[in-house]
Amino acid sequence: MVTVSIVNVTSYTGLELVRILAQHPQFVVTSVTGRSAAGERLDSIFPQVQATTLTTGQTTPAIDPSMVLTEESTRSDLAFVCLPHAAAAEMAAHLLERGTKVVDLSADFRLHDVATYEQWYKHTHPMPALLETAVYGLCELHRERIRTTSLIANPGCHATTSILALAPALAAGIIDSNIIVDSKTGVSGAGRSLSLSTHYAEANEDTSAYSVSGHRHLPEITQELEEAALAGGHPIVGGLRMTFLPHLLPMTRGILATCYTNLLPGQQLGPEDVRNIYKEYYADEPFVHVVDAPPHTKWTYGSNHCFIHPFVDPRTQRLVVLSCLDNLVKGAAEQAVQNANLLYGFPETAGLSSIGVNP
Amino acid sequence: MVTVSIVNVTSYTGLELVRILAQHPQFVVTSVTGRSAAGERLDSIFPQVQATTLTTGQTTPAIDPSMVLTEESTRSDLAFVCLPHAAAAEMAAHLLERGTKVVDLSADFRLHDVATYEQWYKHTHPMPALLETAVYGLCELHRERIRTTSLIANPGCHATTSILALAPALAAGIIDSNIIVDSKTGVSGAGRSLSLSTHYAEANEDTSAYSVSGHRHLPEITQELEEAALAGGHPIVGGLRMTFLPHLLPMTRGILATCYTNLLPGQQLGPEDVRNIYKEYYADEPFVHVVDAPPHTKWTYGSNHCFIHPFVDPRTQRLVVLSCLDNLVKGAAEQAVQNANLLYGFPETAGLSSIGVNP
Amino acid sequence: MVTVSIVNVTSYTGLELVRILAQHPQFVVTSVTGRSAAGERLDSIFPQVQATTLTTGQTTPAIDPSMVLTEESTRSDLAFVCLPHAAAAEMAAHLLERGTKVVDLSADFRLHDVATYEQWYKHTHPMPALLETAVYGLCELHRERIRTTSLIANPGCHATTSILALAPALAAGIIDSNIIVDSKTGVSGAGRSLSLSTHYAEANEDTSAYSVSGHRHLPEITQELEEAALAGGHPIVGGLRMTFLPHLLPMTRGILATCYTNLLPGQQLGPEDVRNIYKEYYADEPFVHVVDAPPHTKWTYGSNHCFIHPFVDPRTQRLVVLSCLDNLVKGAAEQAVQNANLLYGFPETAGLSSIGVNP
Amino acid sequence: MVTVSIVNVTSYTGLELVRILAQHPQFVVTSVTGRSAAGERLDSIFPQVQATTLTTGQTTPAIDPSMVLTEESTRSDLAFVCLPHAAAAEMAAHLLERGTKVVDLSADFRLHDVATYEQWYKHTHPMPALLETAVYGLCELHRERIRTTSLIANPGCHATTSILALAPALAAGIIDSNIIVDSKTGVSGAGRSLSLSTHYAEANEDTSAYSVSGHRHLPEITQELEEAALAGGHPIVGGLRMTFLPHLLPMTRGILATCYTNLLPGQQLGPEDVRNIYKEYYADEPFVHVVDAPPHTKWTYGSNHCFIHPFVDPRTQRLVVLSCLDNLVKGAAEQAVQNANLLYGFPETAGLSSIGVNP
Repeated sequence: MVTVSIVNVTSYTGLELVRILAQHPQFVVTSVTGRSAAGERLDSIFPQVQATTLTTGQTTPAIDPSMVLTEESTRSDLAFVCLPHAAAAEMAAHLLERGTKVVDLSADFRLHDVATYEQWYKHTHPMPALLETAVYGLCELHRERIRTTSLIANPGCHATTSILALAPALAAGIIDSNIIVDSKTGVSGAGRSLSLSTHYAEANEDTSAYSVSGHRHLPEITQELEEAALAGGHPIVGGLRMTFLPHLLPMTRGILATCYTNLLPGQQLGPEDVRNIYKEYYADEPFVHVVDAPPHTKWTYGSNHCFIHPFVDPRTQRLVVLSCLDNLVKGAAEQAVQNANLLYGFPETAGLSSIGVNP
Repeated sequence: MVTVSIVNVTSYTGLELVRILAQHPQFVVTSVTGRSAAGERLDSIFPQVQATTLTTGQTTPAIDPSMVLTEESTRSDLAFVCLPHAAAAEMAAHLLERGTKVVDLSADFRLHDVATYEQWYKHTHPMPALLETAVYGLCELHRERIRTTSLIANPGCHATTSILALAPALAAGIIDSNIIVDSKTGVSGAGRSLSLSTHYAEANEDTSAYSVSGHRHLPEITQELEEAALAGGHPIVGGLRMTFLPHLLPMTRGILATCYTNLLPGQQLGPEDVRNIYKEYYADEPFVHVVDAPPHTKWTYGSNHCFIHPFVDPRTQRLVVLSCLDNLVKGAAEQAVQNANLLYGFPETAGLSSIGVNP
Repeated sequence: MVTVSIVNVTSYTGLELVRILAQHPQFVVTSVTGRSAAGERLDSIFPQVQATTLTTGQTTPAIDPSMVLTEESTRSDLAFVCLPHAAAAEMAAHLLERGTKVVDLSADFRLHDVATYEQWYKHTHPMPALLETAVYGLCELHRERIRTTSLIANPGCHATTSILALAPALAAGIIDSNIIVDSKTGVSGAGRSLSLSTHYAEANEDTSAYSVSGHRHLPEITQELEEAALAGGHPIVGGLRMTFLPHLLPMTRGILATCYTNLLPGQQLGPEDVRNIYKEYYADEPFVHVVDAPPHTKWTYGSNHCFIHPFVDPRTQRLVVLSCLDNLVKGAAEQAVQNANLLYGFPETAGLSSIGVNP
Repeated sequence: MVTVSIVNVTSYTGLELVRILAQHPQFVVTSVTGRSAAGERLDSIFPQVQATTLTTGQTTPAIDPSMVLTEESTRSDLAFVCLPHAAAAEMAAHLLERGTKVVDLSADFRLHDVATYEQWYKHTHPMPALLETAVYGLCELHRERIRTTSLIANPGCHATTSILALAPALAAGIIDSNIIVDSKTGVSGAGRSLSLSTHYAEANEDTSAYSVSGHRHLPEITQELEEAALAGGHPIVGGLRMTFLPHLLPMTRGILATCYTNLLPGQQLGPEDVRNIYKEYYADEPFVHVVDAPPHTKWTYGSNHCFIHPFVDPRTQRLVVLSCLDNLVKGAAEQAVQNANLLYGFPETAGLSSIGVNP
């Protein structure tokens, strides 16, 4: 068994990790931390956790609901770090030093370029040297490098949705550099901290755009897509000209990215051709599914799956790609465990949900 | 007093008309029809209607909750027609013949070009001759012509949102012909007829795109925007190259259109400049408000107001315009009454709600 | 015109008062206060307020959206006080002293008995002398006394729903003293202050009971119901034995109280008889409607109406009464304006919404 | 491996069975039927099903997403019957005849007494002889009998919630026969068939009571509770005097039953005592949890767990019991699989979810 710490378990990603790891056959949670809740039992913060039952393949529970939160994690083989950025980088450095592998769910190690990081996150990077070690943990794009690292930068939720939507078209060189991503997300993406915009009476029966002057997931999206284009042999000269605009929707979970692109002239690609490019790109992926009709976020509820529907607008020859997933699962916690499975050579699907909870 | 019929009152737009007209100082509802519910009382179909109270300026009620629905409307000065397309055109012709003015809430008289209508609506237009009489009832664009017609084509809900968003930029000639509209709508836009996609357990906690091969509001949007560009002295050579994609959101009311456009090169327009173009365009409008931050659909709940926020994406120089309203109100029933107010020379705001119901 | 202050306009009841008073023909808002937001414009806190339009009967606006919030209210004829309890009582005393009439939306003046107040609210009453002056502002029960007072204690939202449900049966002496009220409320009742239980991701798709050891609306419910029984000539010997249990529902607005009672033996009352007792009790009420089927909270959305359905459970001869309203409207702000209308001899329905916003 | 048929897979319980069985280590689905959808692939009706992945302990998939629905099921060891009542009984008889064990999710075999069944369901029971064979499949009460039957009547969702809430108190003989159950349910309980009351725009932001003249789950609740009282040595003379009133809430999943009872005089039971009676009753149950605070339906989302909180109202000495679960899971599909696990001697928790999906 691999011992695991969850650092800052009181976040929503922390709670999701508890739910997932409780059903995992090979990880065992030995330490959970929480700054303000140190000394409390896990099942007093999240009472539903006392409902943990043994699942198939388990002889002992993977998590003890009566565990007490501590300020510092005890030594473990692996740690999932759910801290805010900056704090996360310092914690990761500390954990790596004592020989713990790290899956970091913050943004601290996602960008290769320190200057870009500091421009978007408005502070000095605490551990710039680690940026070279870190691997961007999108398994579908970096599977092999993930297996051999000790520091994984788990992608952002909007970023996962958009990158999976656009990588095949860029790798195939069928679109130009003008891209618009209109992303729609449920409220849980804003986390468990309180704010007026996530207050029920404000968010219910409402929708609006946010971060109109620039959302922090933009640079990781362009970084990864430009790499994917290059890897496919179709580098983007001058970089992508991308507008990324997120919107808040009155639902708890789910992201739907609607991506608008221009097919390069002379492509003569019919709907089938585009779909085949996508199906081939994701042919062996257990968690990415290219579908023949607009996907619903609800198909992904509580699961690690991403559904993608590319189509060509018949009037304008624009390629439009719809992509959706559960922001807390494939967009955060189960993607983190998928990464951890790779890190330890377990089956990539080990312990992960199969079909989403629907309706 | 002006006597009014509501044809097909059992629809959601019919119900909204009841609510609004009940508070109107000059219209009195003398006839309500409903195909399947003929013979039933209005307050047995919509029990909340029995809560009608006299409002300021009324000495008699504008609507009698105990009215009985009939198959055919009785003679009235004005009729609001809430029938599906095709049926609506035939009814409108019949009503006009007997001297009743008509506000038609269907799509039958919105498009000037019969061929375009027949291509999108897949049937022969029943009354093509009336297309010349009909005025597209977007008061902000066609106020003067509305005052003098007898047949008003009340705009579609998505169309109202998008046209109001884009008309100022096209009239000012600051953007090119490439436009993407990502529209997000609540479920009530689909009406009161049952379908699996509007079944609560399916629509709740879900979002998805629909009509990906082309939505019927597209031709009225381009028709009106091309006219607005022309009216502003900046005709669109070759027409707009517009992608319009609607999405269903888990809320009852509200539309948010996010419109992505390219500023023409050499414009040198800062955020303030763009906002001023918009503020000037709508300077005297009681129901359109250009705001300094992303608007929320909930600001418009139950009201006739539209909020618009144009901004320039600093990284790409794209002009993005956010526009929102209540699809059943400014997108349907109160816009219909706003049109009727113009038709009879009443104050344009007469009987219409002021501030939306919030939170 | 009567000049009006809204004290603590930044609350949800404050915002509702703005919406309602903006459409009122006789009140004009001359002062709005807010502790933390002093110095800000009303339409920067609530941007939708800039959409204020003149309504029928108004020649000048009843509220200026660009008004600046102050710490202290300026002198006005009338004040609506939306402060938390204790602070409210002190403010009311201060306002009364300077000759301003007060509608207090807090609980400070609802209970006649100081000891009961102090037991439930856990602090010394700041102004016990005023309890004798104050009138419990449930217009349907205390209309005449409201007209002549200068201090109105606006009832609680749960209390309004439950008292209206049970007063007719107790006044008629048809039930015994054993009463269970299972109340279900939307989230806006918890106000605009942030808390984990009103965080969207927590409250959405969830329901639970709260205040299981006793909710503060219980004593005002029993006080008023015991008075109503006495007024009807059927005093409750030994007082009511009431369990009141509130539940939080995933919706913004609305309260539904389900009240379970025992018909006194030997009554022989059929469903019609009970309904007639209720219809007679509320025969002349503009805002209370006894209906023949279970009412829906949504019928009341944004309106001042209360719908009541009493029925006899055929198997147990229990009388069950369903009662619903909008907690922010009849449960708070419009009830406050209804009281103010009485206070100034205006028509009781003046400026109040007619039919609720539905669907 | 045990072969399984799902009869009428196009229902919500059918879909849930697909999700759960896909992750089950010992069952393999070999046949799915659907009346109107015969000939279609399972993953064209429910596209999310194509996301099936192998889970721990599986070497072959438990379900093939490309399976074609048939009108008749093929021969299997076990069948889950998701048909409406009456049709279900006939199907069950047919399946039993050919040697297939049956878990019936309809109401056809829940009531021991034919006359009671016919009174509530308004038709002649098609297979009254089978009532003696059938076991009411509430594992917590009838575990041993379930193991040895071939026909299991899976309990109703409201019934499961209420019986689990009240059985311990009745078995311990601490309450009298007067019981009120105020049950609150999400919309999915009404199934996948369309109706106006489950139309999104109607059900969202609304709550109301339904079945006020008597809900069909009442007789199975009283049948089982009277048995539980008898089994505990405290028979209810004259039967229970129960009012059961269900309410529809704007959420997809979840039931919360609030049960109001009277403690028998002279009990002197403190909150701890009551809780201990409950904790002891459910001491060894993997899926029933007695908790110290009001439970939230969301704790149970997508899981087989039931949370119960009994407390004594300090003012009236009433015992109030809160009980909640997911109506489609413990209230239907996972309870059905829990029963099937018992039937085949598998671990009772095999293949069932651990912690609910939260937030």
